Amino acid sequence: MTNAIDREEAESILQSAPFHQFLGVTFAEYENGKVLIECPFREELLVNEEKEIIHGGILSSLVDIAGHYAVLSAVGARVPTVDLRTDYLRPGRRGPFVIEAEVDRVGRNIAVADAEVRQEQRGEMKSVALGRGSYGVSHVD
Amino acid sequence: MTNAIDREEAESILQSAPFHQFLGVTFAEYENGKVLIECPFREELLVNEEKEIIHGGILSSLVDIAGHYAVLSAVGARVPTVDLRTDYLRPGRRGPFVIEAEVDRVGRNIAVADAEVRQEQRGEMKSVALGRGSYGVSHVD
Amino acid sequence: MTNAIDREEAESILQSAPFHQFLGVTFAEYENGKVLIECPFREELLVNEEKEIIHGGILSSLVDIAGHYAVLSAVGARVPTVDLRTDYLRPGRRGPFVIEAEVDRVGRNIAVADAEVRQEQRGEMKSVALGRGSYGVSHVD
Amino acid sequence: MTNAIDREEAESILQSAPFHQFLGVTFAEYENGKVLIECPFREELLVNEEKEIIHGGILSSLVDIAGHYAVLSAVGARVPTVDLRTDYLRPGRRGPFVIEAEVDRVGRNIAVADAEVRQEQRGEMKSVALGRGSYGVSHVD
Repeated sequence: MTNAIDREEAESILQSAPFHQFLGVTFAEYENGKVLIECPFREELLVNEEKEIIHGGILSSLVDIAGHYAVLSAVGARVPTVDLRTDYLRPGRRGPFVIEAEVDRVGRNIAVADAEVRQEQRGEMKSVALGRGSYGVSHVD
Repeated sequence: MTNAIDREEAESILQSAPFHQFLGVTFAEYENGKVLIECPFREELLVNEEKEIIHGGILSSLVDIAGHYAVLSAVGARVPTVDLRTDYLRPGRRGPFVIEAEVDRVGRNIAVADAEVRQEQRGEMKSVALGRGSYGVSHVD
Repeated sequence: MTNAIDREEAESILQSAPFHQFLGVTFAEYENGKVLIECPFREELLVNEEKEIIHGGILSSLVDIAGHYAVLSAVGARVPTVDLRTDYLRPGRRGPFVIEAEVDRVGRNIAVADAEVRQEQRGEMKSVALGRGSYGVSHVD
Repeated sequence: MTNAIDREEAESILQSAPFHQFLGVTFAEYENGKVLIECPFREELLVNEEKEIIHGGILSSLVDIAGHYAVLSAVGARVPTVDLRTDYLRPGRRGPFVIEAEVDRVGRNIAVADAEVRQEQRGEMKSVALGRGSYGVSHVD
C-alpha cells in the first residue's frame, strides 16, 4: 500500500466527477478502508415513474462508487473498477439512499470491496442491494 | 414463454423510464431475444472530465438496460433484474455507445442475458464492457 | 416460505451427494438461514502439489455447497443454484476449511446467500474466498 | 504479453494438478487465447445420484480450468484466478462435458475469459453453464 488519501482530497476527487455531481453523492463517513455515502433522490433516477421504482443501473452505480472510495481510502490512488456485481434484494424507492462499503482485501493485482445499498422503506432501514467489486491496484505508480 | 412484446410497445416502455430519457437510449435493432441499443454522449456521464472517461456505473446501467429488453422481447413481460455483473475491458470515452444484448436461456425462475458495450475509439469499434444479468421470470402473471 | 428442514434431514441430503462424500463435508453448525460447514484436506483438492495450493474450483464448490444449505435451511426445499460468484482473496493451503454461509434475502424467484471460506494459515484464521450465490426458490412445489 | 506457452508445456501443467487428474480433463484443442477441454464422467461428480445430476461446483471448476488455460495460452505464465462467475443454464447430466474458453481481453492487471460448458443431452449439444473469470496477470515476472 502506498500513501492513503485523506477525506478532503477524496471528497474533492468524488466531487470532480460530473456523474457524481448529477447524483449528488457525498461522504457521510470516511475511514481507512470503509466509507458511508449518501445519495439523495431525484426524478431522473426512476425506472418506473408510476410505481416510483429506482433504476437498477443507479443502484449498481452506487455500489461501484462506494466500493471505489473504500478501496481508494486504503490504497491511496485511483483504482479503476475491474468488475462489478450487484444483487438486487428489493426495489429501490423514492427517497435517499445510504451506501456502506468496506475493503475485503487488497491484493497484488486487485482489491475487493463489498457494498450495501440501504434505504428507509415504511419506517424501517432495508437492504436494497448487495454489491462486490474488484478494483485494479497498481503498485508501480 | 408467454406472449412476446412488439417493438413499438417495448419502445414505449423503454421511453417511459425517466433514467432512460436522461440517457437518451433508443433501439437500433429489436428482435425476439436480441436487441441493439444506442446511447449518445452527454457530459454528465463522465467520471473524469479531464481524461473524458465514462463512469463505470453508466456502463453497468447500459448492460442492465440492454439485457433487460433482450429478455423482455423474448418473455413478453417486465422482468426485474435479479443480479448484474459487468467486466470493464477498457475505459469508455466521449462519444456514443452501442450495446448488443442477447438472451442465453429462459428458465423456470430466471432468464440470463449477455450484453456487450461497444464504442468507436480511434477509428475502430472496441469492446468496452461485457455484462451478464439474471432477470426474474414470473410465469404466473 | 414453506416448511423448513431440520438438521438431520439436511445432513442426510448433504451426505447423499457423491461429490460431498468425496469432499467429506459436514455441518459444524446448522441454523435457520445460516450454516457452518467443515471440509477436510485431501490430496486430490490440490492444483499445485509442490506449493500445496488448493484448486480454485474446490473453493467455489465449497461456496456453492454452504450457500445452498443456508438457503435450504430457510426455505425447506431443494434450491438449485442459479448463479455463483467467488472472489479469491488468498491461496487455499493444505489443511481443513470452514465455510460459513448466511441467507441475505429470500425473494419471490430466488434467494441470495453469502459464503466465506476460511482456513488457519500460519496460526491465524484467514479469509480465503468470498462467494455469493443465487438459488432458485419455487414456491409452487 | 510475454512469451506464450506451447501445447505440450500447457498439457504438462494441466496434468500436474491432482484435481485435474481426478477430473481427467484433457485438451481437445489448444490455440493462442482459446482452448477446448474435455472432461469424462465419473460417479463422484454427481450431486444427485438418483436423478444423475452433476454438482454445480464441478461445472464451476470446469469453467475455471478452461478460462485459466485460455488465458495461460495467451499470456504465457501461470495466471491465478481472481474471481469466477458461473450461470447455470440447465442441469449437467451423466456423461462427458466439453468446455470452450476464450480470452476476452488481456489488460494491465487482469485478463478476462469466457467459458461455456456443453454436453450432449438427448442427442443434442446443450449449453449447460456459462462462466466468466478474471485472472491475475503479472507482467513483472
